[in-house]
Amino acid sequence: MSTRIKLTLSYDGTDFCGWQKQKTGVSVQGLIEDAVFSITGERVSVIGSGRTDAGVHAKGQVAHFDTNSAVPPEKFYKALNTVLPSGVKALKSEKVSDKFNANRTAKRKTYEYSLYSSDTEQPLKERYAARVYGVIDIEKMRSAAKILVGEHDFKAFSATGSSVKTTVRTVYGVSVEKSGEDIKIKVCGNGFLYNMVRIIAGALLKAGKGELSESEIVKALETGDRTLLAETLPAKGLCLLKVEYE
Amino acid sequence: MSTRIKLTLSYDGTDFCGWQKQKTGVSVQGLIEDAVFSITGERVSVIGSGRTDAGVHAKGQVAHFDTNSAVPPEKFYKALNTVLPSGVKALKSEKVSDKFNANRTAKRKTYEYSLYSSDTEQPLKERYAARVYGVIDIEKMRSAAKILVGEHDFKAFSATGSSVKTTVRTVYGVSVEKSGEDIKIKVCGNGFLYNMVRIIAGALLKAGKGELSESEIVKALETGDRTLLAETLPAKGLCLLKVEYE
Repeated sequence: MSTRIKLTLSYDGTDFCGWQKQKTGVSVQGLIEDAVFSITGERVSVIGSGRTDAGVHAKGQVAHFDTNSAVPPEKFYKALNTVLPSGVKALKSEKVSDKFNANRTAKRKTYEYSLYSSDTEQPLKERYAARVYGVIDIEKMRSAAKILVGEHDFKAFSATGSSVKTTVRTVYGVSVEKSGEDIKIKVCGNGFLYNMVRIIAGALLKAGKGELSESEIVKALETGDRTLLAETLPAKGLCLLKVEYE
Repeated sequence: MSTRIKLTLSYDGTDFCGWQKQKTGVSVQGLIEDAVFSITGERVSVIGSGRTDAGVHAKGQVAHFDTNSAVPPEKFYKALNTVLPSGVKALKSEKVSDKFNANRTAKRKTYEYSLYSSDTEQPLKERYAARVYGVIDIEKMRSAAKILVGEHDFKAFSATGSSVKTTVRTVYGVSVEKSGEDIKIKVCGNGFLYNMVRIIAGALLKAGKGELSESEIVKALETGDRTLLAETLPAKGLCLLKVEYE
């Protein structure tokens, strides 16, 4: 009888091709699977709460796998960290029911998009935030953010070419916080479409610059027209903060 | 008649051999001198407020150089940034009097040492902070910090082997701030000995853990005995925040 382990993970996405295993490039999923093999000798599938793209960071990604190993579940993360590279580490491990599925039973996800406002690149901010310039009205960003809260068809807020059953998602909340030259956009929802948070962040930024009106955002939600919105902001500013389960 | 330019610089020290030019390795000073050459065709000496070691970061290092170029002083930083690599950027440039010397006329420097308390490595914190574990009493750290304020012989707080005329320095203030699992130690003084801030941070940490008493710190100041204190903390947690002039 195998044991299902829930892992909480953090990674610096800079050097990875994203969560999912690819033909080329180093993936987070592949590194975790290799680490489990190193520790247990078992070749397992590690299922994440969802994919994160190349360059996207995580403070609290969640994944699960099944093992027959004798490693105590609550100590598994420390064993894995002895073999994981410095860019990916497990923060916690615990035994969960076989009904737990990191992907299918996830109820809420929270992402954060980080921006900084500066007329020149700042080396100590560049790794985890996108630089913006010009006058940005935070109240306009907050006002635009309110439009997105609730159940909507977010088709206009997803990268073209992605195939999903439905583009309807529920956004529970969007906050915009400013501290000095740093701006953080936090988005919590029941699930996200491909590039959705990066497109939301881009639209809110454009709203804050006075280049995108609230009626245009409403129209984008109504029509699903991606071209009404802004460009997708870069991956490096995005971080998966947490994934919640019932 | 040449013009003296004061530069304010920020860098991520991770990939550099430090401020100063070395026989091997990429130095910040060397990169700035090469950038000035690219822009002006002049081979100048760029003088920094002081050396920062390999791996140490800076938000506000200050340097100066003399130029005969026609580039407007206040726009020099943007010109340099077009040729500087992403790890080093100039934040500001201005014309100063020939009496200004980034090194000799510096009056106050402020450094910050960043720690985070966690039982496991966190990839998103590792680049700019040192990890610590165990119970840390912030009030004990603050109390120990007060002992260091004032004019003292900081011989015990400098790496052995450094040759300076005097090991007497004035520390204007030391603050210890905690936010969640993050601890930041800020030290402001008229100048610092080799490794001084990293040794101060190590001593305060040890005091916070209850492993170094206040009387031992007093004794270290009185005797100059380096062995009474703690280990030097790693370079990556250290950042030169600002350098002030009259």
